[in-house]
Amino acid sequence: MECVDLNSDIGEGFGVYKMGDDEAILECVSSANVACGWHAGDALIMEGVVQSARALGVGLGAHVGYPDLLGFGRRKMEISPKEARCYTLYQIGALEAFAKSYGSTLQHVKLHGSFYHQATNDPNLARAILQGVADYNPNLIVLTLSQSLMAIEGQKMGLKVAEEAFIDRHYQANGQLVPRSHPQALISDVNCALERALKMITDCKVSTLEGVEIDIKAHSLCIHGDHPKALEFAKQVRTGLKKHGIAIQPLRSILGLPH
Amino acid sequence: MECVDLNSDIGEGFGVYKMGDDEAILECVSSANVACGWHAGDALIMEGVVQSARALGVGLGAHVGYPDLLGFGRRKMEISPKEARCYTLYQIGALEAFAKSYGSTLQHVKLHGSFYHQATNDPNLARAILQGVADYNPNLIVLTLSQSLMAIEGQKMGLKVAEEAFIDRHYQANGQLVPRSHPQALISDVNCALERALKMITDCKVSTLEGVEIDIKAHSLCIHGDHPKALEFAKQVRTGLKKHGIAIQPLRSILGLPH
Amino acid sequence: MECVDLNSDIGEGFGVYKMGDDEAILECVSSANVACGWHAGDALIMEGVVQSARALGVGLGAHVGYPDLLGFGRRKMEISPKEARCYTLYQIGALEAFAKSYGSTLQHVKLHGSFYHQATNDPNLARAILQGVADYNPNLIVLTLSQSLMAIEGQKMGLKVAEEAFIDRHYQANGQLVPRSHPQALISDVNCALERALKMITDCKVSTLEGVEIDIKAHSLCIHGDHPKALEFAKQVRTGLKKHGIAIQPLRSILGLPH
Amino acid sequence: MECVDLNSDIGEGFGVYKMGDDEAILECVSSANVACGWHAGDALIMEGVVQSARALGVGLGAHVGYPDLLGFGRRKMEISPKEARCYTLYQIGALEAFAKSYGSTLQHVKLHGSFYHQATNDPNLARAILQGVADYNPNLIVLTLSQSLMAIEGQKMGLKVAEEAFIDRHYQANGQLVPRSHPQALISDVNCALERALKMITDCKVSTLEGVEIDIKAHSLCIHGDHPKALEFAKQVRTGLKKHGIAIQPLRSILGLPH
Repeated sequence: MECVDLNSDIGEGFGVYKMGDDEAILECVSSANVACGWHAGDALIMEGVVQSARALGVGLGAHVGYPDLLGFGRRKMEISPKEARCYTLYQIGALEAFAKSYGSTLQHVKLHGSFYHQATNDPNLARAILQGVADYNPNLIVLTLSQSLMAIEGQKMGLKVAEEAFIDRHYQANGQLVPRSHPQALISDVNCALERALKMITDCKVSTLEGVEIDIKAHSLCIHGDHPKALEFAKQVRTGLKKHGIAIQPLRSILGLPH
Repeated sequence: MECVDLNSDIGEGFGVYKMGDDEAILECVSSANVACGWHAGDALIMEGVVQSARALGVGLGAHVGYPDLLGFGRRKMEISPKEARCYTLYQIGALEAFAKSYGSTLQHVKLHGSFYHQATNDPNLARAILQGVADYNPNLIVLTLSQSLMAIEGQKMGLKVAEEAFIDRHYQANGQLVPRSHPQALISDVNCALERALKMITDCKVSTLEGVEIDIKAHSLCIHGDHPKALEFAKQVRTGLKKHGIAIQPLRSILGLPH
Repeated sequence: MECVDLNSDIGEGFGVYKMGDDEAILECVSSANVACGWHAGDALIMEGVVQSARALGVGLGAHVGYPDLLGFGRRKMEISPKEARCYTLYQIGALEAFAKSYGSTLQHVKLHGSFYHQATNDPNLARAILQGVADYNPNLIVLTLSQSLMAIEGQKMGLKVAEEAFIDRHYQANGQLVPRSHPQALISDVNCALERALKMITDCKVSTLEGVEIDIKAHSLCIHGDHPKALEFAKQVRTGLKKHGIAIQPLRSILGLPH
Repeated sequence: MECVDLNSDIGEGFGVYKMGDDEAILECVSSANVACGWHAGDALIMEGVVQSARALGVGLGAHVGYPDLLGFGRRKMEISPKEARCYTLYQIGALEAFAKSYGSTLQHVKLHGSFYHQATNDPNLARAILQGVADYNPNLIVLTLSQSLMAIEGQKMGLKVAEEAFIDRHYQANGQLVPRSHPQALISDVNCALERALKMITDCKVSTLEGVEIDIKAHSLCIHGDHPKALEFAKQVRTGLKKHGIAIQPLRSILGLPH
C-alpha cells in the first residue's frame, strides 16, 4: 500500500494569543512542526502540543525560526552560518526537553518561514544548520523542500532527509513554487488539491502553471494550518487520501526508520 | 582527601554585551551555571561556554531564570507552578543541545536570581520545578541552597541534590543569608572567605553574624563572577583550598556519581 | 443631560496575532486605552488604532503595562518606583508619537493589568507614576479605579483624574471588586449590567454582592473587549444608555476640559 | 569662526549591561544619538542620558534601530516602508517623553546600524521614514550620511538635514565609506583623524584611499563610542578642533535653527 506523511505547523500561538486550532489539526496530520518560542510558541504551548501529539501518535518536529516574534519569522534576516547552527541547536533542544519529559523523542526538524527559504538558497547556511543537526543527533530527520539545496546537502552529509511538497500551491517548471504574490499562487479548491496529492504520490509528478508535468518526490505533504478553512481542508485531504488507499503515517515510518 | 566543588555563573552576556571574564573564571571552578537565554545568555554564548567548559573538564549546569532580560532575572515575578516547570524544561533542553552536539551531557541544574529565591520559599513552585527535572532526567543534579526547601523536597523525590554555601556572604542564625541590604551582608576579604570555606568543608560549620556557629553542608561553594574583583577572588580561593589539601572536583565526583 | 465616557482596551494584538475586534469596539466607546508594545500592541497596530480612533472622535489613552508580553502584563512583577515612572513615560511617548503624526494628542493614561492593580495598592509606585505623568503633561487625564489610592494621590498632585467603574463586575462593601476567582465575580447579563450602569450614573450608587448600596463615582465605564460576547455587550450598553438619555462622550468632555 | 557638531552614540547599554562611558563621552560631544530600547537602551538608561545631556547642553537625538537587541541592530532585516515609518515614530516618541519630562525637546533623529545603511540605499524606505519625521515634527533635524540618498530625499521634502562625516574611516572616490572588511577601512591614529577633520571643515574636502580629493560637507563629525580608545579619541579631537579655532556646537546652532 502506498503511504505518505501529512505535516502541519502547530503551536504557533504565544502567551494569550491563539493561532489555529492545534487540537483539531493534530487529529488530521501524522507529523507536527512545533514552534519553539522564537518566531512563535512558548514553553507552555510546547508542553501542551507535545502531550497531545504524543497521545495521537503524531511525530514531533522542531519548527526552527528566526528570533523575530514581531515578524513571525517571515522577514529576511541576515544571520551568519554560525548563528544559524546555534539557533537551530537551541530550538531543537528546547523542544526535545518536553518530548523527553514524556519519555519520547523528536522525529524531525524543519525550518520556518524566511529561515526555510534562505537555507534553501544559501549553501553555507544550509550546511551549517545540517551540521548542527548531525552533531546533535544524526537520526533526526530533516524535513525540507523536495529537491532543494537543503535536501541535496543533507543527503551528502548522510542525514535522513524527508522531502515535502505543497498541495495548495502551484509549481513552476523549474520546480520552484509560484511566489505568493502571483494571482494563481494558491490552490483553494480542495478537490483540485487532492487530485494533485494523488498524482504526486502515485506518479511522482505535478502539473506546473505552465502546463508541463515535472517530477516531484514527496515523503510528506504540507498542510497549512493558519488560514480560516485550514481545518476543513486538512480533514478532506486526509479522508480523500485514505479513500484512495493511501496510508497516512509519520515520517519515521515513511522513511522506514525504527520508532 | 577532602574535596569540594566550586561553582560560578557563566555566560551571562547577551549579543554584543559582555559580563565577566568567562574564560578566566572557567579555569578556576569545577562547575559552571550557564545562562540559557532567558535572564541572560544567548545561543552563541552558550555554544562558546559549552565548548570551553568541556575542554577544561568543568561540569555543565543549566542556570534557569525568569523571562526577564531587562531585569536580569532578579525581579520577583509571579509565575504558576506549571509555568515554572515548563520554563525549567525549556532552558535545560536548550543548553543540553549544545552539550549533546559535543557528545557531552549536562551535570546539574540551578535556578537563578529571583527564581532561585522564590523556589526556596514556595513548596508548590519547588515541587513543580523538581518534577520537571525528574521527568526530564532523574540523574541531573539539583544544585541549591544548603538545607533549603528545594534541597529537602528534591531529596524526598529521590533526586540527586547538591547543597551549596556562600563564602562571600554572611549567614543568620536561622541558616538564611543576611540580606544584601544589610551593611554587613558581604564578605569582601578573601582570606576571611577562605577561612570560612575551610571551616565549612572540614567542620561543616559556619559562624553567623550573631556570633553563633551553625551546621552547614556544602557540596559546592558558590563563587560570584559578576563583580570587579571576582576573578582574583576565585583564583585565591582555588589556590588556598588546594594548599590546605582540599581537592576541587565537579559535582558529579563530589556526589560519587558516574561521569 | 447626563453623560458618561465608555472606555475599552484596544490594540492588544501583536505582530500576526489578533485580539478582539478593534474596529467594531471603537465604534461603541468614547475613549480607547491603547496598548503600547510592552504587554501587547506594536508600532503598526498603534498606528492603525490611532488613525481609526481619530476618525471616530474617540479619545486616545496610553495603556501602560509591564514589560511582559509572554504574560500579557497580568503577572505581578516587582518593579521600583523609578522603573514604574520611566516605563510610563516611555509608553506614553511612544503612543503620542502616532497621535502627533496626525496632528492630535493623547487624552489620558491608564495602567494595564497587574501594573494597574499594584499601583492602586502601593503609594510609592502610584506617586512615581503620577509624577511621571505630571512631568510629561499635567493636562493628561489619569483614568483609574474609582476612589482608589491612585485617584486620591493624583488629585493631591493636582492632576486631572477620571474615575472608572466596572459594570460587568460585582463590588464588595469596601468598594473593591470581587476577585475574579469568586464564582459571582462576573456579571454576564447585559440587562443587569445596563441597570447597574444607569444607577451608577444617575444615583452614584452600586449594589454590592453583600446586598448593601455603596457610593461610586464614575466618569467612565470600562467595557472589556477581550471576551467572545464583548462586542454585543458593548453595543447594547451603548444603545441602552443613549435610550435612557445618557450621552456618551470622551473623558475630556466629561471632565469639562478643552479639546 | 568656523564651527562643527560632534555626535556620538549614547545609552547603548541594556538592563545590567553597560556599553561605553556615556558620562565621559557626553562631555566631549555636542549631540547625542540616544538608543531607544529597540537595538539597545532601555527606559531607565534613556532617562539618565536625557538628564545628563540636558545638564551639559548636548543636543538630544533619537537613535532609531531595528527590533533586534540580539544583533544590536546591525543585521539586515527586510522591513516594509510602513514598518520603517512606524518603528521610527515609536522610538522618537519614546525618547521625546523623557526630554519633555524635563521641559526639553528632541533636536534630531539618526538611524542606527543596518537601518542607517538600508535607508541610505532604498528610496522607498528613506521616504517612508522621512515622511514619518515630517508628520511628527518637521523641525526635527535628520542627521545622516553626507550626500546620501537620505540627505537628498530629506531636502526634497523640505526637512532640516544635517550631514555627517566620519573621521575614523577611509572614503572611496565615489563618496562611500571603505567597507569595514577592508584592511584599511579604519583610521586609528588620532592625529591623522584630526587632520582629516580640519580639512573637512575648512576645505570641505577629504582624501580618499585612492589618493584623490573629493568634496564633503559635514555639519557634524561622528565619534564612535564603542571601542576601547573611544574616549581618548573623542577628547583629543575635541581639544584639537578647539585649538584650531573650530567651535563645537549642537546641530541646531550649526544649522542656524532656534533652540
